Amino acid sequence: MPNTMPNTQSLIPGFHGVREALLNGDPAIREIWVASGKRPGRAGEIFRLAKKMDIPVSFKHSTDMDRCLPNTVHQGIVGVTEAFAYTDLEQVMEKALQDDIYGLIVVADHIADQGNLGSLIRTSAFFGAHGIVLPADRSARIGPDMRKRSAGASVHIPVAKVVNIARTLELLTKKGFWIIGTSGQASTSIYQFDWNRHVVLVMGNEQKGVSRAALKWCHEIVAIPAQSEVESLNVSVSAGAILSEIVRQRNG
Amino acid sequence: MPNTMPNTQSLIPGFHGVREALLNGDPAIREIWVASGKRPGRAGEIFRLAKKMDIPVSFKHSTDMDRCLPNTVHQGIVGVTEAFAYTDLEQVMEKALQDDIYGLIVVADHIADQGNLGSLIRTSAFFGAHGIVLPADRSARIGPDMRKRSAGASVHIPVAKVVNIARTLELLTKKGFWIIGTSGQASTSIYQFDWNRHVVLVMGNEQKGVSRAALKWCHEIVAIPAQSEVESLNVSVSAGAILSEIVRQRNG
Repeated sequence: MPNTMPNTQSLIPGFHGVREALLNGDPAIREIWVASGKRPGRAGEIFRLAKKMDIPVSFKHSTDMDRCLPNTVHQGIVGVTEAFAYTDLEQVMEKALQDDIYGLIVVADHIADQGNLGSLIRTSAFFGAHGIVLPADRSARIGPDMRKRSAGASVHIPVAKVVNIARTLELLTKKGFWIIGTSGQASTSIYQFDWNRHVVLVMGNEQKGVSRAALKWCHEIVAIPAQSEVESLNVSVSAGAILSEIVRQRNG
Repeated sequence: MPNTMPNTQSLIPGFHGVREALLNGDPAIREIWVASGKRPGRAGEIFRLAKKMDIPVSFKHSTDMDRCLPNTVHQGIVGVTEAFAYTDLEQVMEKALQDDIYGLIVVADHIADQGNLGSLIRTSAFFGAHGIVLPADRSARIGPDMRKRSAGASVHIPVAKVVNIARTLELLTKKGFWIIGTSGQASTSIYQFDWNRHVVLVMGNEQKGVSRAALKWCHEIVAIPAQSEVESLNVSVSAGAILSEIVRQRNG
């Protein structure tokens, strides 16, 4: 299975930046440093927020804080966040093509909801996808809801951010991948389709489905046949059902 | 496919009850009645909340409101909620056994999160399960998050509430159902298991998995084989992968 670099940390200096991040939950703060000997005052609000949100506060010498944040006014308050480490698309492709099973890449084609994106990442990781591709714009941010629902799975699967989905699918096609879109209206069922080939699975936006730009590059559109009047599934549930079928066919 | 009765409505009388429900979102209010000619005052807050939450307010004669709520002090403010209509377990069983395909009932064994329960209901409905069984205690409530994530699917699938899960599984066993539990540790994979029989699929709590009381009644425990170090899936994603495999085998 592919490995990514451990997620790197970044530091937010100063009362306002830390307060803002605590209130918005974005970026997610996992620790707060306060200069030892700092008078309560404004730090009091940070303490209260941190306690409420169960974020540990540790005291540090102001000089140590200066060392971590050279030439920065930090006012004795620093938030430690976990920055998300993206992987190159090239790296994802190479891993997918070099594995001893067929390549499997999931494209999150403008998934709007952070929680859905998080659950999609977790699901893709569980079923052994080689990577996830996100568009840089109009996609849910890597924020606290996404982190919560992915339950840490983003460490186990590389996530690549790309500027242009269409160009990315063109490139993947040239590398030998089959681009497979999903739609409730498609006539080919996920059970009929032969998944024993290098596959890029395109999961569309919650409301609009797979984008036009992506559809143009799809070699096939597949559907999970609905067994009732309920016509659609949550995007990560759809992905789970399809990825499960891919795993079944490839191991069968 | 099974049909349930349309969900019945219930009325919340008075400023405080309506305000509380609006603020908590539980029970979900879908309409507010205000007595025509009522002076703004406290109603003003209700108007503001309703507007913010996009809930329609309609004016009614106070005497009409009296008629709907006899012998009740309603202060000229009434919230109309949608009460959830549960189905009898017996009815679910009969439907499942009379269908021309094998029976399929999903037991939500103490699912704690409303959103997860909602998504599980939607997923079960999509894949044509004949019903969902919930324990009366220690289960997520039918609340706004559940309604949001089920996306209205609860109209298409009967939901039965039972006092005792073990006794329910015993009864289902006697009726000829196979009780199938799920666990990441099981050695039988969902792809190996033969789903062509009457099945009760037991989906366990997010943290603790299938309860001991339910495990005792399971004829078999199955697993979705993880393809990476990510060991678990969201409960509705698990259910989706398993139900998809059931549909594939039964239609294949």
